[in-house]
Amino acid sequence: MTKDIRLNAFIMNTVGHVAPGLWTHPRDHTADYRRLTYWTELAQLLERGLFDGMFIADVIGVYDVFHGDRDFAIRHAAQVPVNDPLQLVTAMALVTRHLGFGVTSSVSYEHPYTFARRISTLDHLTEGRIGWNIVTSYLDSGARSVGQDALAAHDDRYAYADDYLDVCYKLWEASWEDDAVLRDRSRGVFADPDKVHAIRHRGPHFHVDGVHLCEPSPQRTPVLYQAGGSGRGRQFAARHAEAVFIGAPTTAILKTYVDSVRASAVAQGRAADDVKVFNMHTVVLGRTDAEAEEKHRDYRRHVNRDAALTLLSGWTGIDLGKYELDEPLRHVKTNAGQSAVETFSTADPARTWTIRELADWVGIGGRGPVTVGSPAAVADELEAWMDETGSDGFNLGSVVMPETFKDVVELLVPELQRRGRYKRDYAAGTFRDKLFGRGPRLAPSHRGRQVKIDDAGEPAARESVAAGE
Amino acid sequence: MTKDIRLNAFIMNTVGHVAPGLWTHPRDHTADYRRLTYWTELAQLLERGLFDGMFIADVIGVYDVFHGDRDFAIRHAAQVPVNDPLQLVTAMALVTRHLGFGVTSSVSYEHPYTFARRISTLDHLTEGRIGWNIVTSYLDSGARSVGQDALAAHDDRYAYADDYLDVCYKLWEASWEDDAVLRDRSRGVFADPDKVHAIRHRGPHFHVDGVHLCEPSPQRTPVLYQAGGSGRGRQFAARHAEAVFIGAPTTAILKTYVDSVRASAVAQGRAADDVKVFNMHTVVLGRTDAEAEEKHRDYRRHVNRDAALTLLSGWTGIDLGKYELDEPLRHVKTNAGQSAVETFSTADPARTWTIRELADWVGIGGRGPVTVGSPAAVADELEAWMDETGSDGFNLGSVVMPETFKDVVELLVPELQRRGRYKRDYAAGTFRDKLFGRGPRLAPSHRGRQVKIDDAGEPAARESVAAGE
Repeated sequence: MTKDIRLNAFIMNTVGHVAPGLWTHPRDHTADYRRLTYWTELAQLLERGLFDGMFIADVIGVYDVFHGDRDFAIRHAAQVPVNDPLQLVTAMALVTRHLGFGVTSSVSYEHPYTFARRISTLDHLTEGRIGWNIVTSYLDSGARSVGQDALAAHDDRYAYADDYLDVCYKLWEASWEDDAVLRDRSRGVFADPDKVHAIRHRGPHFHVDGVHLCEPSPQRTPVLYQAGGSGRGRQFAARHAEAVFIGAPTTAILKTYVDSVRASAVAQGRAADDVKVFNMHTVVLGRTDAEAEEKHRDYRRHVNRDAALTLLSGWTGIDLGKYELDEPLRHVKTNAGQSAVETFSTADPARTWTIRELADWVGIGGRGPVTVGSPAAVADELEAWMDETGSDGFNLGSVVMPETFKDVVELLVPELQRRGRYKRDYAAGTFRDKLFGRGPRLAPSHRGRQVKIDDAGEPAARESVAAGE
Repeated sequence: MTKDIRLNAFIMNTVGHVAPGLWTHPRDHTADYRRLTYWTELAQLLERGLFDGMFIADVIGVYDVFHGDRDFAIRHAAQVPVNDPLQLVTAMALVTRHLGFGVTSSVSYEHPYTFARRISTLDHLTEGRIGWNIVTSYLDSGARSVGQDALAAHDDRYAYADDYLDVCYKLWEASWEDDAVLRDRSRGVFADPDKVHAIRHRGPHFHVDGVHLCEPSPQRTPVLYQAGGSGRGRQFAARHAEAVFIGAPTTAILKTYVDSVRASAVAQGRAADDVKVFNMHTVVLGRTDAEAEEKHRDYRRHVNRDAALTLLSGWTGIDLGKYELDEPLRHVKTNAGQSAVETFSTADPARTWTIRELADWVGIGGRGPVTVGSPAAVADELEAWMDETGSDGFNLGSVVMPETFKDVVELLVPELQRRGRYKRDYAAGTFRDKLFGRGPRLAPSHRGRQVKIDDAGEPAARESVAAGE
């Protein structure tokens, strides 16, 4: 297989994303995340490198699992402060023409009716360049912030998300017919009311009566991203996701995942390649291997171990502060008292990891693979990851910002292009057109195209909305 | 009194805002509301005219009171489709330096914890140019869209809004101390955890435990706008608002309002001029009175009467479709069977209005005053409105977009400047600095500065957030 390699930039509206402590590096600019031009310059850089998209992570809550305390997160800026990702989009869209924006938004904090409007608005204003990374939240501190005692059980959260998505699909796909909007100045008719339908949704979690507030946007439904490797998460991805983001540390783990999610998609009546898989990967580039290795050593000196363990404890829900740094990982138990080795999903499960080694490994590149070397060496490695796993590309993590992406654009992309593994220009059309090359809309076999506006399977009675007036 | 006249542009992320039917005018571009450059060009035009702000209205729901049917709203684009206002801000901020952005957001549809983050994010990215128009929603169709049977009673909505605001104030004003953020690369300390506090809010509607997710933004609390003329609304404005938007049709009504809201603010321990009052006003300008009148006649030919009555029925909750066009307004009863004359608050209460006349009057300029004339005639009128009422300026409504604002910038602003009634340059600083000239923060006497992070009046126990880990 010699598929083109696709690149996304994995970023977050925060100081320290997946490189705990690296904000202290003298060439790092993430602490400028509050400045609009930090983002617009980054977007322009990525578009220069023909990146498909910017994948903007998010989390609601503070990483307070490590030592049962949020102090470590705040002191080291471990994903706090963390600003709203959606507000970055339109400024970046204004200065680019092709770059896609995959924004993370949790189903836990906003009603789908108003959320659907936010996304439609962004799809209009970006002319079809918006994606949505659907997440259910994983920090109890986020739940407490909105008055819940703790997060709902994991599987319940996916059932809730299914219902949430169905509301969104009805609004995006079914409320306004394709030819509802006429914009006919001479007749004075903006839209044909007979082609605009109220949805009448009666799900387990949401009851919604109303028309979508937005006319159809270029893609209608945004490109749907999902990140989540659990069994239920995989089922959710197979049902909804068009692009899956995973952080597999080895090609073997990634290949198993790719095969499994594609088989699950097929079981849902979708095509195997209806789901693109992007693995997180971090690259440290130099003009030569030696230069790259020296850069990597320099970066490593800025890793903050407490910040790394703060992130890792938050991601897994296991307080690593209860263990000595030199204790082996196999001593660590999950909160249910089981061995936690699998939970941490290390690069080399056969090796005996200590907590300290785990922290150092996570310090650059999070839990994903890291490749250090010349453009040729890194290109070799990325090609191998693609070809051995059947994946579609990478979410590249940042180490020093924007240096990491500058190196990719200036050193790696030309090398990949020389090898014929990277596009030389953007394809036309929306974000979805660029990813799949078959139009701006969800594939006809996707669940989002199957919805009916009314749960009973017939158009909602028009009167249901106007009742009581 | 010869206060400077302040101007805001009253706009909405929709096709037909307060000029029902005018989207059909050959020179009107509101139907381009989906294009980002429509907005960035408008923002640049307004900044060229030294407007203080752009006041971005919003509504969740569809105007379905007229004839008990939403068809009229959809056919004539009477504030539907209506896209999310927040997503316009950062693109416009990127191409301007001074213009403020007052965005409308209802307390009814999003939790204050995540809403507070959205606004802080915007305050950071705009470098302190954000305002928030606090609304409680008025359309039952909006309530049904999020699974409620109907809107809560009016006064209950304000009690809910009070609680919502208190959560926001605690997050914005009290969670992070001024010197909490150090950004100290050499010591590796981003923020001092001892100066970042979890709020512990136990209000009638919201329970919130957590730190604000954002570091302090330039203004912390956005400039607080409020629009609402009811008794309870006025009390809410006196307590919270720094700028009030009203649509008084006569100077007498406006003066009564200005005096009353200022007296109420003083009763709340604030200064009388802590609340700026902006009246809605629509101007139609020509180089001469005759040219302006001809333009007005041309505009009027594009008013759509059904669309006007759709808006008016939605605003008041009274179905004007039940009456003949030539019936006098005094026949109209409120839903409670009372006379509705006062509800409609016409320009001339002494006159006998018919429904038809009411629709035609509302067709240009909504329920606010309209002045047609040369720059000198319009300037005379605006000066008189200011000086007779003690108000602070105007929210200028649009008729034909962007022509209405282009005329203001090119014809009216120079005339007001010649008269010494309009600034010749922006003041430095944030939106609040520009409005009040005394720093970026809420006045010390404002309720938002009085909040304690804990309802019990003492700092929240640090453990309350980390409990259970």
